Amino acid sequence: MRAEVIGVGTELLLGQIANTNAKHISTALATIGVDVLWHTAVGDNLGRIEEAVRTATGRSEAVIITGGLGPTSDDITAEGVAAATGRSLIRDDLLAARIRGFFESRGRAMAESNLKQADLPEGATPIEAEGTAPGFYVEHDDAVIFCLPGVPWEMDAMLAKTVLPVLRERSGDAVTVSRHVLTVGVGESAVAHAIADIVDAQTNPTIAFLAGGGVARVRLTAKAPDEARAEALIQPVEAAIRDRLGDAALEPGEDSVVGVFSSLARGHNLKVAAAESLTGGLLGANLTEAEGASDFFHGSLVCYSTEAKRAVAGVDPAILDEHGAVSAECAAALAEAAARRFGADVGVATTGVAGPAEQEGHAPGTIFVGAHLRGQTEARRVQGYGNRSNMRVIALNSALDLARRMIVDSSKP
Amino acid sequence: MRAEVIGVGTELLLGQIANTNAKHISTALATIGVDVLWHTAVGDNLGRIEEAVRTATGRSEAVIITGGLGPTSDDITAEGVAAATGRSLIRDDLLAARIRGFFESRGRAMAESNLKQADLPEGATPIEAEGTAPGFYVEHDDAVIFCLPGVPWEMDAMLAKTVLPVLRERSGDAVTVSRHVLTVGVGESAVAHAIADIVDAQTNPTIAFLAGGGVARVRLTAKAPDEARAEALIQPVEAAIRDRLGDAALEPGEDSVVGVFSSLARGHNLKVAAAESLTGGLLGANLTEAEGASDFFHGSLVCYSTEAKRAVAGVDPAILDEHGAVSAECAAALAEAAARRFGADVGVATTGVAGPAEQEGHAPGTIFVGAHLRGQTEARRVQGYGNRSNMRVIALNSALDLARRMIVDSSKP
Repeated sequence: MRAEVIGVGTELLLGQIANTNAKHISTALATIGVDVLWHTAVGDNLGRIEEAVRTATGRSEAVIITGGLGPTSDDITAEGVAAATGRSLIRDDLLAARIRGFFESRGRAMAESNLKQADLPEGATPIEAEGTAPGFYVEHDDAVIFCLPGVPWEMDAMLAKTVLPVLRERSGDAVTVSRHVLTVGVGESAVAHAIADIVDAQTNPTIAFLAGGGVARVRLTAKAPDEARAEALIQPVEAAIRDRLGDAALEPGEDSVVGVFSSLARGHNLKVAAAESLTGGLLGANLTEAEGASDFFHGSLVCYSTEAKRAVAGVDPAILDEHGAVSAECAAALAEAAARRFGADVGVATTGVAGPAEQEGHAPGTIFVGAHLRGQTEARRVQGYGNRSNMRVIALNSALDLARRMIVDSSKP
Repeated sequence: MRAEVIGVGTELLLGQIANTNAKHISTALATIGVDVLWHTAVGDNLGRIEEAVRTATGRSEAVIITGGLGPTSDDITAEGVAAATGRSLIRDDLLAARIRGFFESRGRAMAESNLKQADLPEGATPIEAEGTAPGFYVEHDDAVIFCLPGVPWEMDAMLAKTVLPVLRERSGDAVTVSRHVLTVGVGESAVAHAIADIVDAQTNPTIAFLAGGGVARVRLTAKAPDEARAEALIQPVEAAIRDRLGDAALEPGEDSVVGVFSSLARGHNLKVAAAESLTGGLLGANLTEAEGASDFFHGSLVCYSTEAKRAVAGVDPAILDEHGAVSAECAAALAEAAARRFGADVGVATTGVAGPAEQEGHAPGTIFVGAHLRGQTEARRVQGYGNRSNMRVIALNSALDLARRMIVDSSKP
């Protein structure tokens, strides 16, 4: 089954927001073995919505459209789908009653224009609103067209409750499973070179490279009738790649450095704290992005100013005077401070220059990371590249990788 | 001039990454008055790249393609452009020499396959590599096709140095200017209702609504021959909208709550610190995303565990025992602790439940924010909605908005 995702909304084309809905939908469809072959985004323009829908239904069996289902006059996705499929719009009485009920229950007057959200292409099945906008899906020729709201969490809920079950039913039982082999601080081309012959020999799983934020990742993607068989296809190839990469490969089972580190900390029952200068809180924000971080993460001392490194983290003023805030010594002191202040087993730290201006005579990209594990402290210099945002991600990944190595080494006999 | 953006890379279609390049390119093109009408993403597939390029050149005068310019066998964007435009690929000797030189200067052996990055469609103008991948642009019929690497910072640099100057030259001098009026904690529909008649009467600037993260924003976009004339078109309409929204509208000049708060803190010469539970560092990360945050931001105490709130922030144990960590009292105490520990004028704090599970008997979406300004502390409850990530963004925006109001009120006579 081939699928495509269409985002509707002028805000996408003006660059006001990124099309993260297309990303989430694609991730979800991959898990049920549906191939997404196209993403498209168009503005709130009837002709272009119609063209996009017509093109999509001509070449794909599943079309998922997000956005343009609200009550305002520029919300015209339903009209576009109706035009592309040669249907008229029919008011759904149940949806209309729900919309009236929504306003009544809040004691608010409803403008008649709100009822346009109950106007669906003839023959469409409504999808109950998660927030205020209902969705729908409609079959056309050999394709099924889903229309979901653009608000990410409303879209997400409808995707899980309606789109995936309907598509799974129609697509048979094939699944796609992806596994990642991550390395930190090793270039993409060095990784590619090391495993080139394995890659060339492979068709299922397919192997792809992704690089960013100081991390090179090898992604293996297998297709099979069920998850167990997909895993069985991946397993020997992943093992061969890990064998080739040796110590450079991170522990399996997670697709990010944050994930690998979090899983390792949990597995070793280690409490973790951070002290951040360069990353400004990004390290803590990343560690707490997934639920349950409180199992192992206590907190972070974000010490952006030099004075805060002294006064809040308690970094020895002699270190700051002699070596400066951008130094391995400062990174080590911050890592120790994090562990000490939070009473944690592991302290992780970042300092450096994200740019674009230099600082204390250091060029942008001068990054030092530190890690402390039960009495032992290490720090290292990392070369950052790219823009400010990329530098910060490199710093957080490198700091977590340093701590990861220390945890792994400490548990070796 | 109509433009479209094509992202090439199977990782986009598998949902491994979001197409942030399309967002950045669209934002940049809007500033020079180029209308982006389509975004498309396709995988590393020759037939579909060719189809996408052919469709794009048939309906747009500028086509910007990102991704697929690397040295590996799945990097086939140049082939796709050559096929779509009926050209052959010709090796560019200067580019080839540079690639050889890159490896020689690092004392590394070069695989011959790396030279494919020097193979450009006949007649193309090379764009010098920012990292390792060169780009190029080529004219075809009435369109110009740009091919840029997928790595965001490499893409970004080429966009600024080559794409924008070339397109500005071709498109004449029209510019697009956008201004935002932000409100926090006011629903999008309430804002829309309050200014409906102004919106209906407007064509240039156009007016759009965007909502997310607890923020409703009105965007005014004007097109004119130059920036001054675009500003002159926006000014009276923005003034009318601000007049209508009154106190609910944030201070002008910035397009985010973080931006408005940062500008206000700088303007009042206030030093700022934070204490974060719910946001886990995201507040600090957001305040330090732009360069120069060290002007006003000292740091943040990320106290994720209850013990850290006591031991690191020094929150009175009686508050935690009586009211719990999810309480207005705790938010207030955290805000005071932030100001005290960092010696700052302003303390900003978040606590609450991001979910999906409940905590201490509080449902997800129970958010408390606190702010302290020179001896005065306030805290309020905010209702979060959406997923975990959205809850955290609502918390950080609401906390900064509370501090913003206190700063504004304190400077009134």
